Amino acid sequence: MVITSKDNARIKEVRKLHKKKTRDKEKLYLIEGEHLIEVAKENNAPIKEVFIQEDKTFDLNLGSVKVTEVNDGVMKTLSTLVTPPGILAVVGEVDTIENSKRVLIIDGVQDPGNLGTLIRTADAFNFKQIVMSPDTVDAYNDKVLRSAQGSHFHVSLSRRDLNEFLDTFDGDVVTTSLEGDTELKVDESKNIALILGNEGKGVTAALIKRSDKQFKIDMTGHAESLNVAVAGGILMHQFRV
Amino acid sequence: MVITSKDNARIKEVRKLHKKKTRDKEKLYLIEGEHLIEVAKENNAPIKEVFIQEDKTFDLNLGSVKVTEVNDGVMKTLSTLVTPPGILAVVGEVDTIENSKRVLIIDGVQDPGNLGTLIRTADAFNFKQIVMSPDTVDAYNDKVLRSAQGSHFHVSLSRRDLNEFLDTFDGDVVTTSLEGDTELKVDESKNIALILGNEGKGVTAALIKRSDKQFKIDMTGHAESLNVAVAGGILMHQFRV
Repeated sequence: MVITSKDNARIKEVRKLHKKKTRDKEKLYLIEGEHLIEVAKENNAPIKEVFIQEDKTFDLNLGSVKVTEVNDGVMKTLSTLVTPPGILAVVGEVDTIENSKRVLIIDGVQDPGNLGTLIRTADAFNFKQIVMSPDTVDAYNDKVLRSAQGSHFHVSLSRRDLNEFLDTFDGDVVTTSLEGDTELKVDESKNIALILGNEGKGVTAALIKRSDKQFKIDMTGHAESLNVAVAGGILMHQFRV
Repeated sequence: MVITSKDNARIKEVRKLHKKKTRDKEKLYLIEGEHLIEVAKENNAPIKEVFIQEDKTFDLNLGSVKVTEVNDGVMKTLSTLVTPPGILAVVGEVDTIENSKRVLIIDGVQDPGNLGTLIRTADAFNFKQIVMSPDTVDAYNDKVLRSAQGSHFHVSLSRRDLNEFLDTFDGDVVTTSLEGDTELKVDESKNIALILGNEGKGVTAALIKRSDKQFKIDMTGHAESLNVAVAGGILMHQFRV
């Protein structure tokens, strides 16, 4: 059966996932396009169901995943892209990983490309838990998903008050600061939470204050600051586990 | 006098700088917006002239730079932005810096954000000379300029055949490779040229072959590759001078 009405109850439910509030509540998000769905499948991401536009074919082995055909009008209402690729999946978030030895804390990053790159880099250096402040850009927007290249399926992402999270964290809290130490040394046997801040404002002063150690990446040249994803890459590589 | 005709000879000359070919030939490019022009001014970039939309005012000290007023119709034809900020400058490229101790070589990077971030990072770690292959994205497009945050005014950028450049380079040529060494060690007393490759394909095989040393950044986690600007950041930080 092909769903042809955009007012269909199930279609309406899926469309609600366009809203961040619904995604946060349901712990579900949408991904689109053959490549991303293939990556999700390869990484055993919990794919709940897939919608395919009736006039398109894809060479994907979806196993036992429920697949529903829709017409192009319905697909347009489900998709968040200007040109819908014709295949869309509802995916469950990775369960929270507690007590990861390395945690990446994101304090208000706004650019989707930066957030996606940070998620990809965290995944590369075994920072399995990522905690984002409520004012950080939505981690499940399409640009973030594309920049992260499938790393959403490996790391635990959560959005919460950072001070509350740090109250429960057992380990050293490190962050970037213009007055920090350029020698990037930590006690690597401990758990480490690395805080990275907003592109313009950096890390909130209150969070710098409660951190155990502040680092400034040694810039020998002319530029006075680094892109947050580059700074994060240098520090996560240094503190990888 | 306010220029009100888009067919004005000077306006036509400036508009030709929308073409990469003209920019490369004239060694001139356009920047737009108060912030970027302020940064250019602060960095003593060779600003040739400035065009301001007649109904806008800006709080900029342009010194002896020639300023011409244009109407909004003319500004629309000069600007490459959807919403022209109303101020635009013609800037000369930084003269070629020969024999920089650290050279960044870009082999076909396609994403403007990645190229801009690499230029910013090179500037931060004293890689003063950047050499790009002809198939690299244009370094003076607006997105590249924005991501580079003013670093275009500090480094020398050129576009040429990379093999020809390497024939003249006196020092060690290092690059990334999936079969490379994870210990990031070089003889830092020598000049170093670091080659970074295209987002999808990496560094061209012929260039890997003629490099003196290949590195693979040690990824302990799940992601199999890094964003090129992040990889470049880790390596430039390591080899900074």
